[in-house]
Amino acid sequence: MGTGITVTPATAGDAADWHRLFAGYCAFYGEALPDGVAADVWRRILEPGHPVKGLLAREADGTVVGLCNYVLHDNTWSVRTDCYLEDLYTDPAARGRGVGRALIERLVATGRQAGWRRVYWHTQEDNATARRLYDRVTGGRDAFVRYTVKLV
Amino acid sequence: MGTGITVTPATAGDAADWHRLFAGYCAFYGEALPDGVAADVWRRILEPGHPVKGLLAREADGTVVGLCNYVLHDNTWSVRTDCYLEDLYTDPAARGRGVGRALIERLVATGRQAGWRRVYWHTQEDNATARRLYDRVTGGRDAFVRYTVKLV
Repeated sequence: MGTGITVTPATAGDAADWHRLFAGYCAFYGEALPDGVAADVWRRILEPGHPVKGLLAREADGTVVGLCNYVLHDNTWSVRTDCYLEDLYTDPAARGRGVGRALIERLVATGRQAGWRRVYWHTQEDNATARRLYDRVTGGRDAFVRYTVKLV
Repeated sequence: MGTGITVTPATAGDAADWHRLFAGYCAFYGEALPDGVAADVWRRILEPGHPVKGLLAREADGTVVGLCNYVLHDNTWSVRTDCYLEDLYTDPAARGRGVGRALIERLVATGRQAGWRRVYWHTQEDNATARRLYDRVTGGRDAFVRYTVKLV
């Protein structure tokens, strides 16, 4: 891609960088997660075989500038796996350099190799910055709307 | 509820009814599933502990008139489970009698008891009949749009 951005699965040594970026991501959405949730997500990401997984994006000098957390799950329309791209975040200092696109492209490539059915995600309808990227990489949002019943 | 509709988890004896309704549901969406997929979904529903599960709705005389298939999966915003209500279908002969609502209400009640974080689902933006029900039971669609990359 020529952007100098490389993407790799998150590993134990990335803890501090992952926590820094995940905190920035939660702050962007105005969410204060309960104590212990971020630590538990990180524990799940590192657990071999767990359906929660993470990718990190680095600049050429090794600086971690973006994260992607995703969740693999079954569906009822095929025997293949669905991949829910749940969190995608670029360090504000590294915006506009292709970090988000590199993370999505790596995730899609991983899924093609693994035989997943699809990669999908949600974003706030009015998140214009994110949607410019998502429109480019997908050809536009799909024709489905989401309904949610919060239980807690 | 006074509708005479009862909802219970799908069990092995429901195979013929479940297959009949699931076929009707797929036909509604114009989807011809590959051979063996429906049988595999049904196998997963019956497998204890599997994240794919099913509910069936019956009339007072025992006739099965609706199905709901759902998928439990992790998320990265809490330690609780998310419930994706993937399939919801009422036999055309039993429409307008509260079958869909009974299935959703039973699923939500199940989730409250089990401590899930939320129940969510998608529907085609122009599916006016379904959306009338969904708008009533949720207060309206949420503010997120969906993007999908199909891998196969």
